Amino acid sequence: MHVVVNAAMSADGKLSTRRREQVVISGEADFRRVDELRASVDAVMVGVGTVLADNPSLTVDDSDLVAERDQRGDSPQPARVVADSHARTPPDARVLDGAAETYVLVAEEEPREHRQTLEDAGATVVVAGENRVELPDALDQLEAHGVEALMVEGGGELIFSLFADDLVDELSVFVAPKIIGGRDAPTLADGDGFVRDFPELELAGVERIDDGVLLEYDC
Amino acid sequence: MHVVVNAAMSADGKLSTRRREQVVISGEADFRRVDELRASVDAVMVGVGTVLADNPSLTVDDSDLVAERDQRGDSPQPARVVADSHARTPPDARVLDGAAETYVLVAEEEPREHRQTLEDAGATVVVAGENRVELPDALDQLEAHGVEALMVEGGGELIFSLFADDLVDELSVFVAPKIIGGRDAPTLADGDGFVRDFPELELAGVERIDDGVLLEYDC
Repeated sequence: MHVVVNAAMSADGKLSTRRREQVVISGEADFRRVDELRASVDAVMVGVGTVLADNPSLTVDDSDLVAERDQRGDSPQPARVVADSHARTPPDARVLDGAAETYVLVAEEEPREHRQTLEDAGATVVVAGENRVELPDALDQLEAHGVEALMVEGGGELIFSLFADDLVDELSVFVAPKIIGGRDAPTLADGDGFVRDFPELELAGVERIDDGVLLEYDC
Repeated sequence: MHVVVNAAMSADGKLSTRRREQVVISGEADFRRVDELRASVDAVMVGVGTVLADNPSLTVDDSDLVAERDQRGDSPQPARVVADSHARTPPDARVLDGAAETYVLVAEEEPREHRQTLEDAGATVVVAGENRVELPDALDQLEAHGVEALMVEGGGELIFSLFADDLVDELSVFVAPKIIGGRDAPTLADGDGFVRDFPELELAGVERIDDGVLLEYDC
């Protein structure tokens, strides 16, 4: 499976404020780029924190891009994937609106009735890991469902976990010309953090876009 | 006064690990750039957290640059400034090694004997603000001491405070191709963070340097 992480952050590395309130970070050109990236993959993944904070739909916006997917024999929309160890995705979340297939990754210890609630809401539940989703196993299971190209849109906890499991192939970061600040604000990579053996990236592209800069890395 | 903030961060916005242990973030070319920047200013400032964690000397390394300062009638080394509300700078810190003039900014409530300890160690103590250093007042006092150009090298608490007080004129950030991660790791701008009225920057320069990228902003 090929995993691309895509995110937009402030110049100080924040994805949103300490209150987890969304900030308009990227502009029109970056929005278009992200929409094209979504249209190019089999599935778009976020952590449950992002679902709870932002309630995104994760669908491709541009109808021409949707039509192109259809023409090449893909589903009109890429699947949605939520990393959600404790099955906290609300049944009325937009990722469960039926606009695309949705996988919710949960841990084994999660009670069967929680899985059932998600399945009743239309999700395909993928069980991996005892009390936390084991990402390598979960991604293998997604691949068995046909997900060869996966885009990850955050948040920082999920992105850190993917780096910790050495699962990231590419990282694209739009860096916006603003400061959010905050020692408790979510960053591009949160989690426990590395203290040695830091993942080293290779800078593959630098491009001015909107009023910021897009940094592209091979991982 | 003209204030330039200069820092090196990982691709996810971290200045060091959650343990506050220094990480080699920038390379040779960036080291040279930072040395030149230091040589061009009247004073180099850090927060006391940086002194306690890294014990930097903040001096210009290249003897040619030191000689050039001397030739143009400046002190051989720029002054050092520590923002240190509670006078925690150890008397044996490298910033108090006598290699350059050193200002320590402390709050009024700090007991006189603490100030005396710093003065005995060779510092010039600048008092500004009741229980926390009031940066606009402190920078005015530094200006009265002849500091017209100030470079700030971190950490994230001081950088946030300077943005909060609208005191930053330029921001240079070297973005290294590595991930440090960690929800508790220090970032480029920590503090409480903004929740609205985010400081907007203008991207003035984008340059590949070493294996990373240097982003320069007007503030």
